Amino acid sequence: MSFTANRIVLASRPRGAPTAANFRFEQFSLPEARSGEVVLQVLYLSLDPYMRGRMDEGPSYAAAVGVGDPMPGQTVARVIRSQDTRFAPGDFVAAMTGWVSHAVVRGETLRKLDPARAPLTSALGVLGMPGLTAYVGLHDIGQPRAGETLVVSAATGAVGSVVTQLGKRSGLHVVGIAGGPEKCRHATEVLGADACIDHRGPHLRERLAEACPRGIDIYFENVGGAALRAVLPLMNQNGRIAVCGLIAWYDLGKLGAGTADGPDHLPAAWRHILVKRLTVRGFIVSDHFDRFPTFLKEVAPLVRDGQIRYRETIAEGLERAPDAFLAMLKGGNLGKQLVRLTADPIPGAD
Amino acid sequence: MSFTANRIVLASRPRGAPTAANFRFEQFSLPEARSGEVVLQVLYLSLDPYMRGRMDEGPSYAAAVGVGDPMPGQTVARVIRSQDTRFAPGDFVAAMTGWVSHAVVRGETLRKLDPARAPLTSALGVLGMPGLTAYVGLHDIGQPRAGETLVVSAATGAVGSVVTQLGKRSGLHVVGIAGGPEKCRHATEVLGADACIDHRGPHLRERLAEACPRGIDIYFENVGGAALRAVLPLMNQNGRIAVCGLIAWYDLGKLGAGTADGPDHLPAAWRHILVKRLTVRGFIVSDHFDRFPTFLKEVAPLVRDGQIRYRETIAEGLERAPDAFLAMLKGGNLGKQLVRLTADPIPGAD
Repeated sequence: MSFTANRIVLASRPRGAPTAANFRFEQFSLPEARSGEVVLQVLYLSLDPYMRGRMDEGPSYAAAVGVGDPMPGQTVARVIRSQDTRFAPGDFVAAMTGWVSHAVVRGETLRKLDPARAPLTSALGVLGMPGLTAYVGLHDIGQPRAGETLVVSAATGAVGSVVTQLGKRSGLHVVGIAGGPEKCRHATEVLGADACIDHRGPHLRERLAEACPRGIDIYFENVGGAALRAVLPLMNQNGRIAVCGLIAWYDLGKLGAGTADGPDHLPAAWRHILVKRLTVRGFIVSDHFDRFPTFLKEVAPLVRDGQIRYRETIAEGLERAPDAFLAMLKGGNLGKQLVRLTADPIPGAD
Repeated sequence: MSFTANRIVLASRPRGAPTAANFRFEQFSLPEARSGEVVLQVLYLSLDPYMRGRMDEGPSYAAAVGVGDPMPGQTVARVIRSQDTRFAPGDFVAAMTGWVSHAVVRGETLRKLDPARAPLTSALGVLGMPGLTAYVGLHDIGQPRAGETLVVSAATGAVGSVVTQLGKRSGLHVVGIAGGPEKCRHATEVLGADACIDHRGPHLRERLAEACPRGIDIYFENVGGAALRAVLPLMNQNGRIAVCGLIAWYDLGKLGAGTADGPDHLPAAWRHILVKRLTVRGFIVSDHFDRFPTFLKEVAPLVRDGQIRYRETIAEGLERAPDAFLAMLKGGNLGKQLVRLTADPIPGAD
């Protein structure tokens, strides 16, 4: 039985900020499942800032998406048919299908989900890659010691919101940076940050300095740009910077070509690194999947008990994915940005 | 008995590149030694790039030198009188007297030197702080594995020349960056570098790429500037950058004010750190003095056997120290820059 499915492909590469014209909705014919394969109906797409990098020419973390190829990404899906004995129709899984309504994938690429244990969507956020990213970046890269000061940019995003809460649980003074008063209120009132600085307001550096009276020991970097420039002069000796994302700079073009208008801030940054003996370390969650069991064991009970909270912004329908993605890049979301692909009830969600 | 001695003080703070007018030669009256103190005749001054930073307002690694105060620095000296039972007249010591002909210091700040075991001047270079800096930066920060590629800037300097040779002994492919054909020849023919790139020539990045066919795993950073910008695009995944010095940028002014004309290279640098999971770590040798015994035990025999070689550029007379220092900042020296303060014979040197 042939089956027509939907997908969103990269129509063209962006020049600077991406627009809706860089995406195209299209139909395709789903192949039959062969031995070891599983047919999936995708329920939720995860939208993540890293996808912006994949739209450009040349490698970022991974190969670029080809023009005409589906946008990549993690999803939550339901098994429709299975040629893998480990999966049966009706099973829920976390998958890497990209922006598609249906997919045929090998069973070993899937992780089974139990909607009775945790909401399905949490596998794309607080208990998925964003949560693990927060956990690894804060604990393994940041090496926090109680009493230190942590600054986290994009503090209410899928990663930053977990960093903020784990930071408080580690006994840190936590200061968020976020865009707009609503997000800042969320950071302090819901996530428990000691303070949150709205990067859209004036005098970012002065306000940040006020919120960090003992300087900054750990910076969890999600954005680059003005936030980074405000943080660097406040870093303490032997400070650590975990470089997780640079959403403010994603539209500058590829590595190598990635220069921007002056002045040149590299000399000052490098001098802060030298004189304060900073450790700046970039990391990618996929290098740290071995930490997933430890992470889940520690964080899943906290999520279940409501001690770690999370928010989701959910768009409806595959065709809305590009707009939701573009809005997220501009900071339009609170917490994890998802796209729900079905109006049918989903266990653990409805 | 009062005694008149000579010193060189900071006459004024430099604006941009320092000049001879920023220094002043003057005489001063040496105090008597009290209990626990030792009177020293200084034989050699060490001139080091870090001293440039101390000339500016505000802290760099340490407090700034006050205007009117002697320039700081390590020296080799002879004990003239001693009120410390551990030292006797005629002993040779490594001291932190700064740019002076004589000094009265506490005995516990001194390290006794044996001119029969190693030339006295080596205590200021290959077997002193520059050597330890090379050792710590390469081994502890760089974490080399045999077969990897190491790039070291200022490759023939007091630090870089030891990094180059230790790198070869660790089984690395070693590529130096240095100023001019004479230094590059020294790097390859005497220090054993596999290649050395003259940063004064054109197409620095292309020539560096050619010399590093498998990319760069470790960058030992002594200079910043064009060398750093050439290195970053060539860094391999999980590469390490040991930030030891930034001589190309020392004249830009203090931290915070330290911006330069555009374009802004910070976004590209930070993206290399992120995408390639680089670890960039600033370090200061004074944080690592606990490694000194291990370093000496390992490296001193290699120096004695001629397996690690070193060069010195020696100026004559305290009053020549400013000019020698200014020349060194422009790369006029080969190896360790010293100033010899006496025409009298010195054991282990004459």
